[in-house]
Amino acid sequence: MAIETISVNLVTADALLRNWQGHRRLTRKTIEAFPEDKLFQFSVGGMRTFGEMAQELIAMAGPLVEGVATGKWATYEPAKVATKSELLRLWDAQTPQLEEKFPQIPPPRFWAVDKAFGQWEMSGLAMIQYAIENEIHHRGQGYVYLRSLGIEPPPFWERN
Amino acid sequence: MAIETISVNLVTADALLRNWQGHRRLTRKTIEAFPEDKLFQFSVGGMRTFGEMAQELIAMAGPLVEGVATGKWATYEPAKVATKSELLRLWDAQTPQLEEKFPQIPPPRFWAVDKAFGQWEMSGLAMIQYAIENEIHHRGQGYVYLRSLGIEPPPFWERN
Repeated sequence: MAIETISVNLVTADALLRNWQGHRRLTRKTIEAFPEDKLFQFSVGGMRTFGEMAQELIAMAGPLVEGVATGKWATYEPAKVATKSELLRLWDAQTPQLEEKFPQIPPPRFWAVDKAFGQWEMSGLAMIQYAIENEIHHRGQGYVYLRSLGIEPPPFWERN
Repeated sequence: MAIETISVNLVTADALLRNWQGHRRLTRKTIEAFPEDKLFQFSVGGMRTFGEMAQELIAMAGPLVEGVATGKWATYEPAKVATKSELLRLWDAQTPQLEEKFPQIPPPRFWAVDKAFGQWEMSGLAMIQYAIENEIHHRGQGYVYLRSLGIEPPPFWERN
């Protein structure tokens, strides 16, 4: 790779957070698109329901940013809720929490290698990227569930 | 966001390319996991087959990097192949092509706004990120197809 291009900086912390919150808005719309009775009951291929996947995303996002910021890791524990409104309430509570906590990550902590949640050994940045990519991955699976239910998923490119 | 954290640079061009190639290795394993007769015939919920999705990814990756590097955009046209080996051959041909072309992107081109493929108006960086996220999204859908076929998908966290 040409030296100049290799080392060019493309993504700032602010851009990474903006990208994540954009994805979180799309995932929220995907949760909303599920009928109440399907969110925690319907799945394809013996996989988890989309409600369970969303509980994983919630269990990861807030505690992850807290862990990267402070080096103190909670045990990973999926949220346990039974209704769409309760799930969306937890989701919405994390939005301002991420806005507040992310900027408090001391820059060196993005590169510090921790055992995240006591189990995944990687840098803070790698863990944050993993969480975002994991969200995109599972949301894509939610799209298949919605299509199987005859429901049009929200447009993938809309993040507002 | 604290000024210091807002502006900290997290992802270089090199790291972005490394991340993409890691995802491409996982997507390749996902293609490989499909039985020949299911890759272009099986889908869930009336969606496209995973073979068709992979053709979209191929149509995007190489020409996208070429377009970002040069400002010259080809018309978007999905690859047309009918067999797994032919699909993997196209996939593998793009791996060294990306390694060669990506480093030739002049740094200002990451921020230049083009009409990518004559239709999507965004910066080169946004288009590259979109392509990677689109790949993660569709690969997640391929995982549902595989599970529906009773096949274990490759581990999401393995990128080697």
